[in-house]
Amino acid sequence: MPNSLTPITREPTPIRELHWSPAEKASARRAFHRALKKELDAIMQEAKARTARIEDISELWELADWLTERRREVDHKYDYRYSVLPLVFAVLLRDGWLSEADLDGIGQDKIDRIRHAAML
Amino acid sequence: MPNSLTPITREPTPIRELHWSPAEKASARRAFHRALKKELDAIMQEAKARTARIEDISELWELADWLTERRREVDHKYDYRYSVLPLVFAVLLRDGWLSEADLDGIGQDKIDRIRHAAML
Repeated sequence: MPNSLTPITREPTPIRELHWSPAEKASARRAFHRALKKELDAIMQEAKARTARIEDISELWELADWLTERRREVDHKYDYRYSVLPLVFAVLLRDGWLSEADLDGIGQDKIDRIRHAAML
Repeated sequence: MPNSLTPITREPTPIRELHWSPAEKASARRAFHRALKKELDAIMQEAKARTARIEDISELWELADWLTERRREVDHKYDYRYSVLPLVFAVLLRDGWLSEADLDGIGQDKIDRIRHAAML
């Protein structure tokens, strides 16, 4: 039985229930792909630089493990579901793959959540 | 009960029971490492050439898979147990990682087995 003395507080909308307008979705998709491209370009550049420096076969096997790990990480991190997108953006913002300017066009309610989560 | 009518034939010594003299072992070890180095150098060279040509991230992930597969293959193929070494040498001979000259110093009984297995 609910406790009738529980005070009624204004809980923020859970992240998974936020509404994304079509314009916000377009902005989000652009930001997502910009970050993904930036990160993949960085991996590519590092892989090329590392490979050029390799002299020993053990370094080549380490490169393979490193690439497999990067791929797994990217696949896991870049999850384009609106129910988790603010958290995805928070991580990308924190790690420098996105700037706040990249989030232009996304509503303030979501920006606040993203900023807050990025500082956690 | 053994059949007393079974003719006695001279069976060749099973490969795993061949005797390797210390000098043969030294030659075998040298040949084994020469082939391994040759194959690893080829993998290294191909990895560097492939990486330099890569333009798309999917090719980079393919390279990682290719390297992981090469490593598994090399680990499996280069098995330095005398009980299997003639078969290992047969494969290396067949695939061009060893020449017959590389097997100098290894007894004719083993060379015959290696040649025979290489043609199978």
